[in-house]
Amino acid sequence: MAPPRRLHLNLNFLSAGSHAAAWLWPGNRPEAFVDPAYLVDVARLAERGTFDAVFLADHPSMPDRSDFRPFQALEPSIVLTTIAAATRHIGLIGTISSSYNAPYNIARRFASLDIISGGRAGINVVTTADKSVAFNFGSERAADHATRYDRAIEFTDVVKALWNSWQDDALVGDKAASRFIDRARVHPAHHLGRYFQVRGPLNVPRSRQGHPVIVQAGGSDDGLELAARHAEAVFTAAHTQEDSRAYVSRLRARAEALGRPAGSVVVLPGLVTIIGGTEAEAKRREEELNALAPLEQGLAWISGLLQIDATRYDLDAPLPDTLAVPADGMTTFARGALAKARRQKLTLRQLIRSQAGGGSNHRAIVGTPEQIAASIEEWFLSGAADGFNLMPDVLPSGLEAFVEHVVPLLRRRGIFRNAYEGETLRDHLGLPRPEWAPPAGGEVVSAA
Amino acid sequence: MAPPRRLHLNLNFLSAGSHAAAWLWPGNRPEAFVDPAYLVDVARLAERGTFDAVFLADHPSMPDRSDFRPFQALEPSIVLTTIAAATRHIGLIGTISSSYNAPYNIARRFASLDIISGGRAGINVVTTADKSVAFNFGSERAADHATRYDRAIEFTDVVKALWNSWQDDALVGDKAASRFIDRARVHPAHHLGRYFQVRGPLNVPRSRQGHPVIVQAGGSDDGLELAARHAEAVFTAAHTQEDSRAYVSRLRARAEALGRPAGSVVVLPGLVTIIGGTEAEAKRREEELNALAPLEQGLAWISGLLQIDATRYDLDAPLPDTLAVPADGMTTFARGALAKARRQKLTLRQLIRSQAGGGSNHRAIVGTPEQIAASIEEWFLSGAADGFNLMPDVLPSGLEAFVEHVVPLLRRRGIFRNAYEGETLRDHLGLPRPEWAPPAGGEVVSAA
Repeated sequence: MAPPRRLHLNLNFLSAGSHAAAWLWPGNRPEAFVDPAYLVDVARLAERGTFDAVFLADHPSMPDRSDFRPFQALEPSIVLTTIAAATRHIGLIGTISSSYNAPYNIARRFASLDIISGGRAGINVVTTADKSVAFNFGSERAADHATRYDRAIEFTDVVKALWNSWQDDALVGDKAASRFIDRARVHPAHHLGRYFQVRGPLNVPRSRQGHPVIVQAGGSDDGLELAARHAEAVFTAAHTQEDSRAYVSRLRARAEALGRPAGSVVVLPGLVTIIGGTEAEAKRREEELNALAPLEQGLAWISGLLQIDATRYDLDAPLPDTLAVPADGMTTFARGALAKARRQKLTLRQLIRSQAGGGSNHRAIVGTPEQIAASIEEWFLSGAADGFNLMPDVLPSGLEAFVEHVVPLLRRRGIFRNAYEGETLRDHLGLPRPEWAPPAGGEVVSAA
Repeated sequence: MAPPRRLHLNLNFLSAGSHAAAWLWPGNRPEAFVDPAYLVDVARLAERGTFDAVFLADHPSMPDRSDFRPFQALEPSIVLTTIAAATRHIGLIGTISSSYNAPYNIARRFASLDIISGGRAGINVVTTADKSVAFNFGSERAADHATRYDRAIEFTDVVKALWNSWQDDALVGDKAASRFIDRARVHPAHHLGRYFQVRGPLNVPRSRQGHPVIVQAGGSDDGLELAARHAEAVFTAAHTQEDSRAYVSRLRARAEALGRPAGSVVVLPGLVTIIGGTEAEAKRREEELNALAPLEQGLAWISGLLQIDATRYDLDAPLPDTLAVPADGMTTFARGALAKARRQKLTLRQLIRSQAGGGSNHRAIVGTPEQIAASIEEWFLSGAADGFNLMPDVLPSGLEAFVEHVVPLLRRRGIFRNAYEGETLRDHLGLPRPEWAPPAGGEVVSAA
């Protein structure tokens, strides 16, 4: 009998929370964004809720809107290692840019985190379009979209090949024979590609879960190709079940066409939660947050998303028909926000307010624990989601409300674990431990 | 009145220990090299001994002699973050290759470690000559010596400029005014150099100690230039006080010529210790270790160091006059070993055995706690050293002996601290917190 399908919950740990005004919430401290005690407290709270993982988005440059709100300043692998030391079960997923890193360095760093944490690591492989990042790495501009994703696919090929350097039994540790490892069981990658030439082998053994879980985010066609080839979990953006199911179908079809078995990719749409004991209380919390968020910040958000100067629009008129999805930009987010605004007949101001004050591009639910649990179950059972990439409005209070009041309902509905049932992130996500295989990039020869 | 000059002790945490046979010592577990509990236990032991710091050497490729002994597999910043979470005082110094990293990534990662640890981070900036590493980063070979060091100097320029991105008061955190940071107090680096073009600013604030301590190792002329420009601590190799004092004089003269104040660089020669309750006991321990170490391993060590095939030499004859320092290689180490062998009239076998069985290129003392404390004091008082980069023969037992028996003697002699007197690595090393200064690479303009 197959085990019952399980819901997966990942905390998208966005500094003070996903709402634009999260850091302004009473009690929240501005300096928390660089305070290890805060980072650990939030992760422990997610672990108390038996979440699958905490996830850190990332962006290796000073963000444009840093004057308004905290951001991911500390490098994700350092934060995740800090969290690893203070937790026992929860998975640890970090974002890395395939555009501005050498695959050997990333393979090694996340293999190290994976070992240090007892097999709890994951990497979210992204490409980086921003000029502000390009400027930090010796470039005038980023490569075009297709090239970036082409490189990301090859980057992930190399990282996986390096993670397969050591057979699981390469560490011999025979003290009587003075034999530490068997070099015949450690294999170079011999990767000679378009973007990377990497011999290997990696100098790190395989971990308890084989290698870190590979995660992808981004809904473009190129992103879908990266996900179909490599991802074991995908962070998506969808405002409706229909959109989400359509994405799931496309992804699954493409993954199966590439020969991957069914069920080898977990799909986790983003979900912003604003929770109240009653619906009125939840709405009051949303209003209080929106009242705290400077309008300027919301305008900067919508201006960036739609590549317009939002200050030149009437914020309280119906959305102008001229607004369109910009050709080059965050296409999936822009399409989702525009479609929602038109469906719900929102003004620009209403759109901003309904998107966490311009703090998030993801679907938001404002409601009671019962309403949120019901929506989660509905998406889960309809096949629109395997779980969610959760973005509480404010941390830690919004996460606390979720853990205290929504998680028990999900458990009662029989779709979410009562306790951790395994040790590794793969165990939590229901993913198999990958068998060792000779690195794909070249023949199996000793590295001696 | 100036505070008394203080001895500095840094643990060079070489996996199982510096002796070639360290991992074979009874009780040592082969898998310790990737066990976070082991890494933390050793660091805590060093902290119990009020050491200034633990230091991790590094090498981003599979080492040649990995079949013989454990090595630094896990990436240093991940290990140091793990140690940071389990300790309160001890400094955390990681090696990074300036040859195969982008300065923005390194500046950010170590700034993050510095903040996470409360101001305890340091980076040891090295250049990487090995082909095996070049192959992992898309190169057929490393750049030549002068180019590597030229790049290392520029690399460190950029890293320091990025560490000066934020003025200390850039985080405003004014919730009433919805003002998180003052962008006018965050400055790009605008670095346009020969090897790197980096705009910045770094997306990480300054830490409690300003920025990580910069460490350098390597005794070539190019290495000395890097040290004189940038290093705040230097790991050196010297078998005699005369050699060490000569290096110290050259370094200080060059640093002063570059306008750096006296006392701004701490010099720490490497020191291998093999400790026994009596001299006979110490020698017995050395003999037991040498008996455990495969001769093959010692031959591989000396063959690599002198670029010879040592199996073709008579190991028990006097050292042939034809042996010379190889032109391109680890010149300082080779010169030191050859000079010592000639001074002490050693055979090749004796040379191997006296260098921790071929496990270390550094000076070794085999003796009682009193003898070791006396030698440390003598070097310290003569100006040959500000302290030592300590390499116990076997970990943890050799470190335990040092902490239990040598440290109390150093304290009694009044040269080593009885307890930590400050919080940051700079406090421990007696280095000032660097004042914020506009990034050197460009004009001070807002990054908005």
